[in-house]
Amino acid sequence: MNPKRIAELGEFYRDALLGDTLPFWTKHGVDRVCGGFLTHLTREGRVWCTDKPVWFAGRATWLFATLHNQLGGEGAWLELARHGEFFLTRHGFDADGRMYFLLDRAGRPLRKRRYHYSEVFAALAYGALAQMKDAAAEAVADWRARAVGVFERLARALTAPSGADAKVNPDVRPMKGLSPVMCLLGVADALRPVIGAERAEPIIDAAIREVLEHFVRPEDESIREAVSPDGALIDAPEGRVMNPGHAIETAWFLMEIARRRSDQHLLASATRILDWSIARGWDSAHGGLLYFIDVEGLPSPYLEHDMKLWWPHCEALYALLLAHHLTGRAEYAEQYERMHAWTMAHFPDPEHGEWYGYLHRDGTPASTMKGGLWKGPFHVPRAQLMCMLLLEEMARDGACA
Amino acid sequence: MNPKRIAELGEFYRDALLGDTLPFWTKHGVDRVCGGFLTHLTREGRVWCTDKPVWFAGRATWLFATLHNQLGGEGAWLELARHGEFFLTRHGFDADGRMYFLLDRAGRPLRKRRYHYSEVFAALAYGALAQMKDAAAEAVADWRARAVGVFERLARALTAPSGADAKVNPDVRPMKGLSPVMCLLGVADALRPVIGAERAEPIIDAAIREVLEHFVRPEDESIREAVSPDGALIDAPEGRVMNPGHAIETAWFLMEIARRRSDQHLLASATRILDWSIARGWDSAHGGLLYFIDVEGLPSPYLEHDMKLWWPHCEALYALLLAHHLTGRAEYAEQYERMHAWTMAHFPDPEHGEWYGYLHRDGTPASTMKGGLWKGPFHVPRAQLMCMLLLEEMARDGACA
Repeated sequence: MNPKRIAELGEFYRDALLGDTLPFWTKHGVDRVCGGFLTHLTREGRVWCTDKPVWFAGRATWLFATLHNQLGGEGAWLELARHGEFFLTRHGFDADGRMYFLLDRAGRPLRKRRYHYSEVFAALAYGALAQMKDAAAEAVADWRARAVGVFERLARALTAPSGADAKVNPDVRPMKGLSPVMCLLGVADALRPVIGAERAEPIIDAAIREVLEHFVRPEDESIREAVSPDGALIDAPEGRVMNPGHAIETAWFLMEIARRRSDQHLLASATRILDWSIARGWDSAHGGLLYFIDVEGLPSPYLEHDMKLWWPHCEALYALLLAHHLTGRAEYAEQYERMHAWTMAHFPDPEHGEWYGYLHRDGTPASTMKGGLWKGPFHVPRAQLMCMLLLEEMARDGACA
Repeated sequence: MNPKRIAELGEFYRDALLGDTLPFWTKHGVDRVCGGFLTHLTREGRVWCTDKPVWFAGRATWLFATLHNQLGGEGAWLELARHGEFFLTRHGFDADGRMYFLLDRAGRPLRKRRYHYSEVFAALAYGALAQMKDAAAEAVADWRARAVGVFERLARALTAPSGADAKVNPDVRPMKGLSPVMCLLGVADALRPVIGAERAEPIIDAAIREVLEHFVRPEDESIREAVSPDGALIDAPEGRVMNPGHAIETAWFLMEIARRRSDQHLLASATRILDWSIARGWDSAHGGLLYFIDVEGLPSPYLEHDMKLWWPHCEALYALLLAHHLTGRAEYAEQYERMHAWTMAHFPDPEHGEWYGYLHRDGTPASTMKGGLWKGPFHVPRAQLMCMLLLEEMARDGACA
């Protein structure tokens, strides 16, 4: 990628992040009356549901704390991070220590699920707050303690064998998922400065081994979302499903660790995941990334399988840019440009800002909502921030590392 | 509808049912090795997953028993009904009496859910078997006892206030759904000869009152899927959602009861539900019935909201034909023809038979599967059988009742 394009893209992401995405969410998505964040926004930014997903109590808090840590911003991001943390801490947790999934506007619990993803995003939020260099020592100590507490609870839950609360009876079909492994890896890596390298690195190493030995399948160049506990394939739809966006997110998590550790072997493994995900996930008929794929070409049980969702495209933009930067290979720059062109032609809303989340296979919007249970201030601004910071690094370092 | 068209449509449904739909399922969907039915079939009828939905253990058994009761068939349907009943009775029930949701090919339990729809279809299956005039008295007595047992358990479960197992915390957002009410009404009506009119009619009357007073909303001509226990509207997406296919199924359930009771008032209420459902559900842009609608025009949280599914179209074909027959109004014949034309142009697979289940909004197939967890030998053959029998009645009676 030439310096002109690097500079141009850096500007593009900075403008998009600071001039579009963040203003959309700070203007429409902050509940100054009841606390926390409102993510269910229409195309215009109107609230279409006041329920508050606990994932976003964590995710948005993480985002604003990270913006403060990365960009400064004279306390504006810090204030929003504290606003989020207050609601998260006050309303996110049940008496048994487990977290809720959905709260009403006032913070009263509507749903609690068997999964632990609220804990994942809460750990990231407390972890980002605990890494603030300029906050009061007492607050930082409190956030650090909360980060460690949620992380340790999460580590126990995610490494426990699936029990009576498993969705599918483990006596008949024992399974393990890619998601818990990747979540634990991602959180351990993000919280390294908080939980300490001696706690984080063995968890990260074990997760890398498990991903590469069990979920990544060189025999058919696939990444599985679920396998048997011993890594054997499961001959059922849940064992054949591939989620290209999730695999691509996995790839850049691993690339980041490879970069930090200067581990060329891990980098090669990570870019192979990226290659196979793009090869299987790119829709040659309409462009964009398919949401779910059956590795053997059998029907998908998911009605939305051929839709184009915003978040896999966010993951792909950053993963391809990072792969180009770390390997210097021109093909990643070309693939980045293809992904960028399709993404920017279809997801952003030129009239009211931010992105649509859900497109039909042919790229037309299936919904004009800007946010809901799953979409909010997370994937789009995270990708924009990370791409922007990477492009700044690329501009400083020269085109390729 | 003129006699020529009635005869033509009668032939059309007889050919489709006996020459296409039933051969497809009996050829590909009967597991002669492990028992029960295989519903996960590709476009060509190949098995893409051997898991067995318990709903279909009941639904297919109901279908074959009903075919035997309605069409005779020299024991071929009876044999399939017995085949289904054997697997259902042997593998469908947990030790606590509640039913499973999904079994593996051998009948081992994979999933059990909090809902009671396996029980609904098991009750219908045992009820249809118990109404066989030509089966051994001992078998009939056994089926009758099972039908009563499942029905009474179901009646208790569906009329209990939602408790700790509710998906949404009832302390914060108390809700009741249209589905349990309609299921209880439908099962009570179908099992009237088995459980007795004195048991069935009060349940049916209570369900009719609840539907018409709480779920049907004349103020905005909508039918809600969920309301507060006292019938108040819920200002949340789940309280604004309308499922036109489900409302249309509700309409013909009520029309059948109105017909049986010669209740013109109930018939008018039922056709109003049909009118409002078609008015809101018909997609003026692409034709066909939308899957979910937000009554206030706000975003739908369901990714598949604008897809066209097979089963609402099945419900609509029968409901419109029945409405035409019972009211004599020409507009129902016109609406029937519009629904028929769109349905038959998009759902049937001219190459391999049977219907696609899942179309994009524009009518192109989103999946070519012929069956899975939710689609199997039920809605299509039920609609074909009921339309065929109704058209025969119309031919006998003259065009309108």
